[in-house]
Amino acid sequence: MKESPLFWPIKLENNTIFCLDETALPDKLSYLKAQDTKQALELIKGMKTRAFGQVLMAYNIFLLLLKKTRSLKPEKQIKVLKTAAQKINQSRPTFPFTFFTAMVLAWAKEAQQNKKNISLVVKDKINGFLVDLRQKRIDQALTLSRLIKDGASILTHCNVSGSLVLVAQFCCQQGKKIRFFVTETRPYLQGLRLTAWELQRAKFNVTIVADNTAAYLMSQGLVNLVVVGADQLAKNGDIANKIGTYQIALLAHKFHLPFYVLSPPPSPAKTGKDIKIELRPEKELLEFSGKRIAPKGAKGFYPAFDVTPHSLITKHITLDL
Amino acid sequence: MKESPLFWPIKLENNTIFCLDETALPDKLSYLKAQDTKQALELIKGMKTRAFGQVLMAYNIFLLLLKKTRSLKPEKQIKVLKTAAQKINQSRPTFPFTFFTAMVLAWAKEAQQNKKNISLVVKDKINGFLVDLRQKRIDQALTLSRLIKDGASILTHCNVSGSLVLVAQFCCQQGKKIRFFVTETRPYLQGLRLTAWELQRAKFNVTIVADNTAAYLMSQGLVNLVVVGADQLAKNGDIANKIGTYQIALLAHKFHLPFYVLSPPPSPAKTGKDIKIELRPEKELLEFSGKRIAPKGAKGFYPAFDVTPHSLITKHITLDL
Repeated sequence: MKESPLFWPIKLENNTIFCLDETALPDKLSYLKAQDTKQALELIKGMKTRAFGQVLMAYNIFLLLLKKTRSLKPEKQIKVLKTAAQKINQSRPTFPFTFFTAMVLAWAKEAQQNKKNISLVVKDKINGFLVDLRQKRIDQALTLSRLIKDGASILTHCNVSGSLVLVAQFCCQQGKKIRFFVTETRPYLQGLRLTAWELQRAKFNVTIVADNTAAYLMSQGLVNLVVVGADQLAKNGDIANKIGTYQIALLAHKFHLPFYVLSPPPSPAKTGKDIKIELRPEKELLEFSGKRIAPKGAKGFYPAFDVTPHSLITKHITLDL
Repeated sequence: MKESPLFWPIKLENNTIFCLDETALPDKLSYLKAQDTKQALELIKGMKTRAFGQVLMAYNIFLLLLKKTRSLKPEKQIKVLKTAAQKINQSRPTFPFTFFTAMVLAWAKEAQQNKKNISLVVKDKINGFLVDLRQKRIDQALTLSRLIKDGASILTHCNVSGSLVLVAQFCCQQGKKIRFFVTETRPYLQGLRLTAWELQRAKFNVTIVADNTAAYLMSQGLVNLVVVGADQLAKNGDIANKIGTYQIALLAHKFHLPFYVLSPPPSPAKTGKDIKIELRPEKELLEFSGKRIAPKGAKGFYPAFDVTPHSLITKHITLDL
């Protein structure tokens, strides 16, 4: 199966992190480079990569640092990793970076206690984890594909980092014909620019709609289930995902449509109320391609995520790490 | 009270119809010219004017024709008006043009039967009707303003042709402080370009949000009522309005928020099911400022309206003609 470039958007080669520039899609399939933590975090903050790309970016920041610091004393090396972890955790508020950075710090401390070479041990641990993660993401897509019936018309919002292409490929292998409606997902247009792009290039049937069209599609029987991803899963099953997910979930509930979530592992948040919602700069809403589209002086309000309570979620397809 | 340019966007001067170019807003306050029926209908089809502007455009097409045909025989004059009425009715499917064109044809036939000068009689009738219409639109805004409480935060969608500025001005006169959240209203951005613009220039408190933000605003208590207009009102109280209205109404119902509609007079449609929903060209969704933003080959689906059933509408503030 051919993988979507969005499935694994970050790579480390020759001391350089290559990051798929999601803001250049669908016009250009290109990669931005980062050679240190600061540059890498700028790519996250500027949303050049997002969602699953942020997980890969975090691990690759550590891999890069481990290469650069291998001649340092263990205490010093741990300190560098800790500082990086803090910066990663603070880069964007809604994504649960701590889950991933704490894992790396724990490996480093274990290596230090066992008097092992931190660089080698942690590098191996990270690479092993990423191999495992890749397989588990594939398994997750397979699990979801088995829940989808032949002839299904799936509404999706934002972008699930290549997973829907896999889901569609598995459905195809299982002899099932499916189609997608993709919300454009304002203001960043991840649905129009990324999801429609990756499904289209993999030759699946995909139709773009304005975010305003969800209830209309449901009321006309044009979609019969919803699939989204999640940026954070709380312990009680609530999720934080791209703004607009919550209202689609409310509408799916009203129309008795299954609402499936491709979920990450649970974060320390007990419920959705413990998840901090990132407010992005208003210009991301009020400008288009760098040109202001809103009236002069008008204000914008752009919460980048919302919380969907577990009661509206038919099933989590979790990624068990 | 200073009137929004959107309140009365069409004027007839020296055999030329001047039409506020709503697609040039908020960058430029400018008027397009039409000198015959064909040019005038192109402005409607290209959505240079929309909503209430279409009513004014219809009457002004007749006023222009009456001037041009006053030397014709009555039978010939009636035929010209009938042909124009047919063309107007067919210009866009969801708007109930018939209500307005049938009125003009009836006046013309009455004048013919009474052996009066059709041009003079119908011109006077139209002008009298428009004076009355202006006052009734002002009364409608006043009626709504009395339903709004001090401190209200109003969510609105699309654009109600200058009425919300009046509502805000009346609230202000009544000593009430209110604020607005305006959905940007993709794909045509009437909320961002028109409603935010007219409220902002009249110095009211207005904040633009992505269409994806409605449920979030409601769940956080940031809005406490919804006000929209309607392109068509069916006899049973169902309305057709800009795509996305229906989902906002469903959400308002879920959050127990009043959902008020500034409604036109009822059309011949018995229920919302009798209203034909216009499908607009997909490029209006897939392009931005003439440049394609969607992936090459991707399809779009753009129903321009949806139907909100009367059961979701707290109150119609009707325009009784």
